[in-house]
Amino acid sequence: MEDVIENKTNLLDILNCIGIKIEAICGAKGKCGKCKVIIENPNAANQITFQEKKILSKEEIDSGIRLSCLVRPLEDISIIIPDSSLQKEQRILCEGISRKIDIEPLIKKNKIKISKPMLGGEDSFFNYINKELKSELKIDYNTLIKMNDAINYEVLETNLIIFKDEIIDLLKDEDKIYGISVDIGTTTVVVYLIDLETGAQIDVESILNPQMKYGEDVISRITYSLEKGVSDLHHSIIGGINLMIKKLCDRNHIDINSIYEMTAVGNTAMHHIFLNIIPKSLSVSPFTPVISKGLDIKARDLNIKINSSGNVHVLPIISGFVGADTLGVLLATGLYKKDEISLAIDIGTNGELVLGNKDKMVSCSCAAGPALEGGHLNFGMRASSGAIESIFIEKNSLDSFYKTINNSSPRGICGSGVIDLVAEMLRVGILDNSGKIIENGNERIRKNISNNQKEFVVEWKQKTDIGKDIVVTASDIREIQLAKGAIMTGVNILLEKLDIKVNDIDNLYLAGAFGNYIDVNNAIKIGLIPDIPLEKIKSVGNAAGEGAKISLLSRKMRCEEDIIIKKIDYIELASEKNFNAEFINSLKFP
Amino acid sequence: MEDVIENKTNLLDILNCIGIKIEAICGAKGKCGKCKVIIENPNAANQITFQEKKILSKEEIDSGIRLSCLVRPLEDISIIIPDSSLQKEQRILCEGISRKIDIEPLIKKNKIKISKPMLGGEDSFFNYINKELKSELKIDYNTLIKMNDAINYEVLETNLIIFKDEIIDLLKDEDKIYGISVDIGTTTVVVYLIDLETGAQIDVESILNPQMKYGEDVISRITYSLEKGVSDLHHSIIGGINLMIKKLCDRNHIDINSIYEMTAVGNTAMHHIFLNIIPKSLSVSPFTPVISKGLDIKARDLNIKINSSGNVHVLPIISGFVGADTLGVLLATGLYKKDEISLAIDIGTNGELVLGNKDKMVSCSCAAGPALEGGHLNFGMRASSGAIESIFIEKNSLDSFYKTINNSSPRGICGSGVIDLVAEMLRVGILDNSGKIIENGNERIRKNISNNQKEFVVEWKQKTDIGKDIVVTASDIREIQLAKGAIMTGVNILLEKLDIKVNDIDNLYLAGAFGNYIDVNNAIKIGLIPDIPLEKIKSVGNAAGEGAKISLLSRKMRCEEDIIIKKIDYIELASEKNFNAEFINSLKFP
Repeated sequence: MEDVIENKTNLLDILNCIGIKIEAICGAKGKCGKCKVIIENPNAANQITFQEKKILSKEEIDSGIRLSCLVRPLEDISIIIPDSSLQKEQRILCEGISRKIDIEPLIKKNKIKISKPMLGGEDSFFNYINKELKSELKIDYNTLIKMNDAINYEVLETNLIIFKDEIIDLLKDEDKIYGISVDIGTTTVVVYLIDLETGAQIDVESILNPQMKYGEDVISRITYSLEKGVSDLHHSIIGGINLMIKKLCDRNHIDINSIYEMTAVGNTAMHHIFLNIIPKSLSVSPFTPVISKGLDIKARDLNIKINSSGNVHVLPIISGFVGADTLGVLLATGLYKKDEISLAIDIGTNGELVLGNKDKMVSCSCAAGPALEGGHLNFGMRASSGAIESIFIEKNSLDSFYKTINNSSPRGICGSGVIDLVAEMLRVGILDNSGKIIENGNERIRKNISNNQKEFVVEWKQKTDIGKDIVVTASDIREIQLAKGAIMTGVNILLEKLDIKVNDIDNLYLAGAFGNYIDVNNAIKIGLIPDIPLEKIKSVGNAAGEGAKISLLSRKMRCEEDIIIKKIDYIELASEKNFNAEFINSLKFP
Repeated sequence: MEDVIENKTNLLDILNCIGIKIEAICGAKGKCGKCKVIIENPNAANQITFQEKKILSKEEIDSGIRLSCLVRPLEDISIIIPDSSLQKEQRILCEGISRKIDIEPLIKKNKIKISKPMLGGEDSFFNYINKELKSELKIDYNTLIKMNDAINYEVLETNLIIFKDEIIDLLKDEDKIYGISVDIGTTTVVVYLIDLETGAQIDVESILNPQMKYGEDVISRITYSLEKGVSDLHHSIIGGINLMIKKLCDRNHIDINSIYEMTAVGNTAMHHIFLNIIPKSLSVSPFTPVISKGLDIKARDLNIKINSSGNVHVLPIISGFVGADTLGVLLATGLYKKDEISLAIDIGTNGELVLGNKDKMVSCSCAAGPALEGGHLNFGMRASSGAIESIFIEKNSLDSFYKTINNSSPRGICGSGVIDLVAEMLRVGILDNSGKIIENGNERIRKNISNNQKEFVVEWKQKTDIGKDIVVTASDIREIQLAKGAIMTGVNILLEKLDIKVNDIDNLYLAGAFGNYIDVNNAIKIGLIPDIPLEKIKSVGNAAGEGAKISLLSRKMRCEEDIIIKKIDYIELASEKNFNAEFINSLKFP
């Protein structure tokens, strides 16, 4: 191993060689600036190069940041790798895992053995169980009628399955017990199968949300439910989840009755529809949810096909706009119990923000629109095969170096690519901070005759999969400005509410697939997220699913859900008096 | 009125005239001894007659008891009428009513009115309800999905229906709310419809237990359930109850959804079968019930057709043999909280006894057999039309004066008639205390050639409805001895357990239709119940149904149910070392 490493000339290669995959789309030329690392003992490497001084900011250089492709170790070197420098597929769902929650699910298995009741004893078998456990347990009715199967007249020996204060099954054998966590996204539904004794994730299954046929987005589904009732939407999601549960059970040879709990998260509309509640009040001011607190519902009442006595726990939502996905961020990061100030950003069609610490938390929802997911842009697309997901522009030629999903020929630009593109256009000077595209004579910047708009050609049609030039237009830039402006307005108003500054933020958590895949430096450059030192920024991945899993596995965290919700003040941005001024101000690029 | 009264010659007539119906089957001849009253100011009436001295015991005379048919008031007279002297249809279900329970059902109705939620408020409608009530209520899932119907966007105005800590309905209007109490007897099922706000009984409906087709008695139904499963029996009782609920609702123009709770009592086998639990463990030693504690089950889970979010409360049973009917006696009488010693006797096929006070209670079940219900006797019959229910034998002629149910021609003898008959045979000297029928030359006492048994002719065939002499035989007497011996053995063993004597008993409660209809004096004479002064003996009527109604209407009593159960020691008579000796000793008539 050492020999192999010794032959390498730069730190980037060494890291790749030992299995740490670092981003570098410019081909290790010191141009794209993706491969940043922090050197703890600077004397162990060559001096900072001229190229690095061009790419890195003064603050970055002061804090020891180097581009790993230009670092040559001279002796044993000690480095810190920012999360944002890791290749996307390697990024860690940070604290959700690193917090190392204690595996203590609400579903408990308890083996008891009771000798033959004494003649003349007036106690029932059920009372013997409680006496043995020194408890006052109740028993679910569907379980009660199975008690005879567990009673043997010489000895009462059984494995009790207990949820909270209720017996929900009596098992003869040492069967394993399972749980299910469901993340009900507007677009995608993900179901995780979890071993409740080890906490291990056995398997995962996902489908497109079957409600798609009633409307692609939340608004159209709410409209459908107001016109035709919520029943169609409700049954389609329940049916979809049941189908996935069955698939997971079949594939893993698991009896559906050995699944005793399911936890579910979703945004507020998905939450109401899952519960078969018409989301009418979410669609009219003041957007009051019917119910927000966490719920425990018998699986049979919701028609969820796990053990009929099992529990379905629906995680609480925070307000009419901020759902359980945001709660997932809080559970995964522990934001709500830290002394330090943290900001959590979950960007989708709406951006949900939470800012605060254990003493006070404020949250808001920003109407970012779909631009940051690639929507509403001329060549925007979802993050699927052929989407340009990261990009670097050569300053002189304006040629683009980019990476597409699956390394296919480019078909369009997805969210993370859009952010890179804008940041690079700013860097190479073909976009000013008002959002105007600046012509410099390069053929890639041109005026489109059909719409009289300036546009920048990202890739020529010969090299694309769609037979058209892939461009970004002035109106695309405007969409992106509106989106990032909405988010930053939210951040600024929340900061004002707590009377703090950007510098007071100790942690910035980026949630969702989006947060996981964007180039953090570029997101800062375009002013989408506040300018905060890299080491304070962490991607928390799929916070919604993570929250559902944490809730399934941790009794302690479950108990905290409703407490967390109550501690958060929801700020309705549109009703803040300085909203308009803040918003207009936020449209500019930094 | 006074004029009318002044024309009457005796107290019996006066009492009947003012509406107090006193028993007197000998035609006011001072012979049957049924019309006893206690005169508080003896000087206000004529002196005790010779006839009364023949009929009354020395103790009765000493305590001021007279036969009202032979009392002529001389001035204003103050009397006490023993419960046992009232005509059967008038007998009061004493303390169940006289305790005057507070009407405070577990189902509560709570009107709330909440103004339009403020814009920017992060609370859900559900939270507004809890804030308004300063509570932490939960909501039933089936109710949650109806919440939208109750939400008006200007004001949230609704009548909440609450059970324990859970909202189970939201009513727009001031609809009335109802409850149901069910007494599941082996033979008869009675359903009471109760107004939950006033506590008034609206209506009552009864049917023969539809399980009859699977077996007439408890043992045959248990056998059926062991062979073919409990499902048939369970569904037939649930179906029967649902049918009666529907009938009651139709007849009283009540929406089935306005019934929010049902309370149910039954003996232990009826209890298990109602719950769909195979009563196997009740049929084998040590006769341990599967569950004894009180249960609350969602109506929809039990398929009881009241409001689907409503509660079905199944009262606890005391042991494998002592059911919720006996608990009814305790609830109705308050035995369990008195300082005085009380004995409760509930006689059916089994006799259940409870003896004790607030400090200690012991209970047992006595295998009395069906003789005291008219079963297993040559001319025994259930208490239906044509049954001789009370009887008086003229000492010289041995002619019988009797009363039949509905005053029909006699068809047989029911329980209360059997007790009278034996007591009268003892009194007139044609039965000795060993149970031997004594011939005295009267043609009514004869030897039956076909079975070589002595028998007494109660009525000649010419006067019966069945064209046969109605007789009581030596073997009938034996059956009655076994039955009353079983009861008295139980009483004696319980007395020994508490180390007290008959004289220490301050109250004797007789439960059940049987306890309500027997001639208490005669029951004492034949040694069926202990010899206790009449004023200490009270009929508590249908204790099972009474218990179910009390449980429905009184939150306080409901809470005490499981506590009462735990305070009772169950004595398994057959395993007591002095059982055999006691039993043989108890066979003799006093």
